[in-house]
Amino acid sequence: MTTTSSTPSRQVDFYFDFSSPYSYLASESIDALAKRHQHTVNWIPMMLGVIFKATGSAALTEQHPWRASYAVMDFQRSAEMAGLPFRYPSRFPQASHNAARVLLWLQQTAPSKAKPFALAVFRNLFVHDGDIQDADNLAAIGRTLEIDEAALRASIQDPAVKQRLVANNEAATSRQVFGAPTFFVGTEQFWGHDRMPQLERRLQQLNAV
Amino acid sequence: MTTTSSTPSRQVDFYFDFSSPYSYLASESIDALAKRHQHTVNWIPMMLGVIFKATGSAALTEQHPWRASYAVMDFQRSAEMAGLPFRYPSRFPQASHNAARVLLWLQQTAPSKAKPFALAVFRNLFVHDGDIQDADNLAAIGRTLEIDEAALRASIQDPAVKQRLVANNEAATSRQVFGAPTFFVGTEQFWGHDRMPQLERRLQQLNAV
Repeated sequence: MTTTSSTPSRQVDFYFDFSSPYSYLASESIDALAKRHQHTVNWIPMMLGVIFKATGSAALTEQHPWRASYAVMDFQRSAEMAGLPFRYPSRFPQASHNAARVLLWLQQTAPSKAKPFALAVFRNLFVHDGDIQDADNLAAIGRTLEIDEAALRASIQDPAVKQRLVANNEAATSRQVFGAPTFFVGTEQFWGHDRMPQLERRLQQLNAV
Repeated sequence: MTTTSSTPSRQVDFYFDFSSPYSYLASESIDALAKRHQHTVNWIPMMLGVIFKATGSAALTEQHPWRASYAVMDFQRSAEMAGLPFRYPSRFPQASHNAARVLLWLQQTAPSKAKPFALAVFRNLFVHDGDIQDADNLAAIGRTLEIDEAALRASIQDPAVKQRLVANNEAATSRQVFGAPTFFVGTEQFWGHDRMPQLERRLQQLNAV
């Protein structure tokens, strides 16, 4: 998989981390948004920990207490504004590389199950307080989508799958991604669930040309 | 002036720094937003430098280069989305305490000229590339509003006015303000120009009770 520096025409790149609340909010509407303007979405799981290491940043809830407590409140309020259920997880932030690997494996071997699995993982963490790093929990999510359990468990340890996640992280840092969710249209960057109206405006403008 | 921990009913507190681009964007629509829902707005200038010292943060353009260059682009794009003119200042960020002091003086001595002056200062910095710390420039802005020039210049050095700015900073930090613009409805905090739709939704809900 080669690193792209520009998203292909009629496509939107959606970089996310399964442990990011604003990525969850974005995941619930990004496909419909893009479809309204005849675009498709590339779901690209990455590790925010790698991003934060590159930029010297940290999760919102690990920043100054004033900002951290505001963030916890803002997650909830932003979900309400979006009409989405949200429950602040009892374990937060969570490691998310196992869930990311299963998604990467599905994208290659059973693409029709990839986005349903990703949505189910986000909801498991941010609505049902699940542990998305736990292989048994991921297998249970997979069962609801009729995903082969042994193959799912194997994908978590598959060196080729692990390497794809590393490649996604490298693509993200090469494009100067510093948070999640981050969207690209061509080379233009949109950071945050709250920038989706600006993303939509850009797709409208592209269609008007 | 006493520190308030809760904004009075039917009012919105609007904490801002004249050197903050997103505060400029907010300044252009906050009064109309509040008025649509029968609220008034208290314009409260403060110093982001004091806030950043309290929280160990820094201006966006002084953070990691990836985030800083994104911010400069996002200022422009957010202004376009809001239908507002914007030109990235050649001096940024700027000290803004002189402009804040003139505003505080007007709020006490000529309240009808306070908001027009504040709007003119924001536009001077973010549209016309002015130096809003320069007393001659502030006096020129004042002349367009028929504000007495000698009294305006004196306000910048007035110990009582200086003390009011210190009090605003203390009020902001006591309410855990960590950025600008920040709005309060009662004790509820809204941070950022991009949270104005959530602020508006809350005012609608209050009126529906």
